Amino acid sequence: MRANSTLLDLFLEVQILDRVPRSGFVLRGVAEPESVTEHCWHVLFLVWALGNRVAATEPGFDLNRAVEIALVHDLAELRIGDLPRTSSHYFPEGAKKAAEAAAMADVLAPLPERARELYDEYQAGATPEARLVKACDKLQLMLKVAVYERWGTGALAEFWDNPDNFPDGGFPAVAELFEELRARTSSAKSG
Amino acid sequence: MRANSTLLDLFLEVQILDRVPRSGFVLRGVAEPESVTEHCWHVLFLVWALGNRVAATEPGFDLNRAVEIALVHDLAELRIGDLPRTSSHYFPEGAKKAAEAAAMADVLAPLPERARELYDEYQAGATPEARLVKACDKLQLMLKVAVYERWGTGALAEFWDNPDNFPDGGFPAVAELFEELRARTSSAKSG
Amino acid sequence: MRANSTLLDLFLEVQILDRVPRSGFVLRGVAEPESVTEHCWHVLFLVWALGNRVAATEPGFDLNRAVEIALVHDLAELRIGDLPRTSSHYFPEGAKKAAEAAAMADVLAPLPERARELYDEYQAGATPEARLVKACDKLQLMLKVAVYERWGTGALAEFWDNPDNFPDGGFPAVAELFEELRARTSSAKSG
Amino acid sequence: MRANSTLLDLFLEVQILDRVPRSGFVLRGVAEPESVTEHCWHVLFLVWALGNRVAATEPGFDLNRAVEIALVHDLAELRIGDLPRTSSHYFPEGAKKAAEAAAMADVLAPLPERARELYDEYQAGATPEARLVKACDKLQLMLKVAVYERWGTGALAEFWDNPDNFPDGGFPAVAELFEELRARTSSAKSG
Amino acid sequence: MRANSTLLDLFLEVQILDRVPRSGFVLRGVAEPESVTEHCWHVLFLVWALGNRVAATEPGFDLNRAVEIALVHDLAELRIGDLPRTSSHYFPEGAKKAAEAAAMADVLAPLPERARELYDEYQAGATPEARLVKACDKLQLMLKVAVYERWGTGALAEFWDNPDNFPDGGFPAVAELFEELRARTSSAKSG
Amino acid sequence: MRANSTLLDLFLEVQILDRVPRSGFVLRGVAEPESVTEHCWHVLFLVWALGNRVAATEPGFDLNRAVEIALVHDLAELRIGDLPRTSSHYFPEGAKKAAEAAAMADVLAPLPERARELYDEYQAGATPEARLVKACDKLQLMLKVAVYERWGTGALAEFWDNPDNFPDGGFPAVAELFEELRARTSSAKSG
Repeated sequence: MRANSTLLDLFLEVQILDRVPRSGFVLRGVAEPESVTEHCWHVLFLVWALGNRVAATEPGFDLNRAVEIALVHDLAELRIGDLPRTSSHYFPEGAKKAAEAAAMADVLAPLPERARELYDEYQAGATPEARLVKACDKLQLMLKVAVYERWGTGALAEFWDNPDNFPDGGFPAVAELFEELRARTSSAKSG
Repeated sequence: MRANSTLLDLFLEVQILDRVPRSGFVLRGVAEPESVTEHCWHVLFLVWALGNRVAATEPGFDLNRAVEIALVHDLAELRIGDLPRTSSHYFPEGAKKAAEAAAMADVLAPLPERARELYDEYQAGATPEARLVKACDKLQLMLKVAVYERWGTGALAEFWDNPDNFPDGGFPAVAELFEELRARTSSAKSG
Repeated sequence: MRANSTLLDLFLEVQILDRVPRSGFVLRGVAEPESVTEHCWHVLFLVWALGNRVAATEPGFDLNRAVEIALVHDLAELRIGDLPRTSSHYFPEGAKKAAEAAAMADVLAPLPERARELYDEYQAGATPEARLVKACDKLQLMLKVAVYERWGTGALAEFWDNPDNFPDGGFPAVAELFEELRARTSSAKSG
Repeated sequence: MRANSTLLDLFLEVQILDRVPRSGFVLRGVAEPESVTEHCWHVLFLVWALGNRVAATEPGFDLNRAVEIALVHDLAELRIGDLPRTSSHYFPEGAKKAAEAAAMADVLAPLPERARELYDEYQAGATPEARLVKACDKLQLMLKVAVYERWGTGALAEFWDNPDNFPDGGFPAVAELFEELRARTSSAKSG
Repeated sequence: MRANSTLLDLFLEVQILDRVPRSGFVLRGVAEPESVTEHCWHVLFLVWALGNRVAATEPGFDLNRAVEIALVHDLAELRIGDLPRTSSHYFPEGAKKAAEAAAMADVLAPLPERARELYDEYQAGATPEARLVKACDKLQLMLKVAVYERWGTGALAEFWDNPDNFPDGGFPAVAELFEELRARTSSAKSG
Repeated sequence: MRANSTLLDLFLEVQILDRVPRSGFVLRGVAEPESVTEHCWHVLFLVWALGNRVAATEPGFDLNRAVEIALVHDLAELRIGDLPRTSSHYFPEGAKKAAEAAAMADVLAPLPERARELYDEYQAGATPEARLVKACDKLQLMLKVAVYERWGTGALAEFWDNPDNFPDGGFPAVAELFEELRARTSSAKSG
């Protein structure tokens, strides 16, 4: 299996993403953890739902493109897996990024060039649209952590202590949600 | 739990959709069947990936709105479940549709009015955008059926015999994919 | 699939009930939640085990008929699913009850008329036998909630606060068990 | 944990039976195999549904007692597990039966003596009521085998070749169902 | 299925051990509990990793043989299941041991006689090598209990109160690890 | 989490390997696929069981060391995941090997230097002992493929066509087993 040659190949291959569990949850003992596909949908929904608020503070913000970036952002995991965060210590600087870009090119081959450009934009993280997707990628992580903690599954406390999990991308609408989530979660714990 | 009052409520509630398995697969013995969230992502991806081709034959087609319709189309299942198809014989005409619309209003309450309008457009099915989402809803079903059959799980043959599962919405790009899928699947079976 | 035409059809169809998880637990994050079949067995066992005690205070109580009512009480879920409790807000008054009765008639078609009458008796809830089954339906729910809480799975606290979950049907034997369960559970929590 | 001392102990313990999968299916690779609880419910349902037909050919047949026997017949598995069939080669003659009776006495301790007598009747297998439960115990096995084969899960062909799996207990109503099941299954395979 | 006749039979049969969950965890509500195979690997790893330390205090200790004993110690469970601990109350004294030895002889039949001798040595428990495997069998149990408690799954507190779960076999290296595990676990709970 | 500092850290961390499913099976739709731990145990068992036969043709062969190599050979997957085979197309030559060696050093840090040397020997693949482990790593893969095909789960046919999956390492004892497995599997398919 290398570059997909037809749209049908691509559409069939992405179905498999449903069977790839998110490794951060697997390794911390969450029962029936979310799949990469599920993560992808939630990130998309966040980007879309927060988009109007973001556009209010970010002139020229293109919500439609942000949605498209979210749509492709994790598809490389079909080919290289959902690597645990610890793996970054062991691969050479940049190797994971390069592998993802190459895998993405093969996965998305039947689509117009623009699809790969959206992914490059995501990796570069320079535009407001890419920054919003990156922020929502983590916001979704912490929403799910909160849900799993309420359900009593997994050893997830460390996520709250890692500042990397709370990037607001400079968007007040995101920062506010992180605040609310923290507040609600700690009140639930002390309650 | 009635109408969500904040975005945070909404974002937390939709996480739960990951635990709602698609009833059509559950009732036919598929092991580890896809969740409603996973279905939603794939429909979105199809709508987006086929959009450019559709736009070529459908003047004025708004791909961005089609993507948005796909994003909300199944959220009512959080409140009323993923009813098996047989259930429609037992509820009064229109009851399911009305229930979905009411549930959707409660789920999406923290979002601007436009979100509910997208859902109404989907249910009405009159615009090309809504028709494409409806077609992709079934195209995704049949793609997954093909994948599960290859994996050897579930008693799914009857899906291929039901013409309702092959609506092309009048779009050649969709009709073509249904054709290819049928051809590839029957060649795999006889091979 | 409409009305079953032979006993064999019926016996094969009910096997599928094992794959229908109880939606109240699914939506609250219980891992590997009980199936509708499992629920049904436990309700039956409660009705049978409490029957003699009930008969002592309820002259003319027919334990055998109560057992039979318990045996059929949830079979409609094969055709319409295990609707989450929230769904009742969205369907018209009585629609769910009517759908269940119609589905039940199709499922149980190969059995003598009496089987449907047992179900009607359950829905009407007017006889002591039907009341005992209804009470045990909830008693089983709360027993399972207690077990899941001990196992650490699911966000189930709200069940204890809903008085609808503690119907004793006017039977001291049931009231007593609800008491004991509450007492044991709160002592376990504070212990 | 030895003899249960209260009804509540008993009711809580039996919930656990939902987590005991049927070993015959586990060892033959069935995905998400039925639990002992699920098996118990189906046997009960068969006994009840076939009861009237049996009574027609078996004067004095007590359907209510047959239902009660079915209700208790597998509860010992809570304490000794669902031993695989091969285990009988390795334990001394009669050891499993004695262990089941002793375990049953501890499990059912809070119930009147009659509950243990029902189990003794089942083990002895001398009454028509016990014979019907034993026949339905295997009929349910073969119904589930047929369902799993349709779903494509497990290596179950050997079950069809073992005459021990087709005991009709001398009841034409049961013999007829075994016939129909065999006929339908082989026509599905050759079809 | 009786005595395996070829190595291939044996190698295929042991694959099935992956589907046998450890009954002590199943019955206490652990989600996705470890399999017997997984338990076996961890015991092996402990024996090997602690071996050098043990050899320092135990002259003539044969680490290689200890590893081999660990390799075979639980294979009888393929034929008789992973009996819950409570089952020992219900079988005659020695019946389980005899059954395990007989099952083991059938499973390991294609291997040289020495394989069964290793198992006999384990059951006798008289050599330091057998004692170390027995100690590590429980050490692994308690390590997994600690992990599951951190993950929030299962009602496992009683394991800490049973002195049978902490046999050090007379080896300071094992005693020390039990100490450390207890210390770390109670500090985590009070923390 | 970087280098483990105590044996207890190491022993707790390896428990997590039970939750890492083998990606080759996940991506081909196997239901409830084996874990990396399970794979490791089976490889060990093969190495041990075939060792005497190998020693007969391979003078100076050290079975004990071969067993030790098998024990450590896959532990790096705790830190970098079980990368799908396709990932090798996307990482630079040698990156995966280097990552594994570095991860292994951190995982095994509390053990004597010799443990890392065993892993280096495995990666180099120059000694007969390392070659046997590598051959058994694939032999186990194909044994499991055969078992899953018998169980009807997963789309695994392509494994039989890849010559890389049948390395005998120059050992007749291994070559013979591959032969027997192929023969038995094709006769089962045509039978």
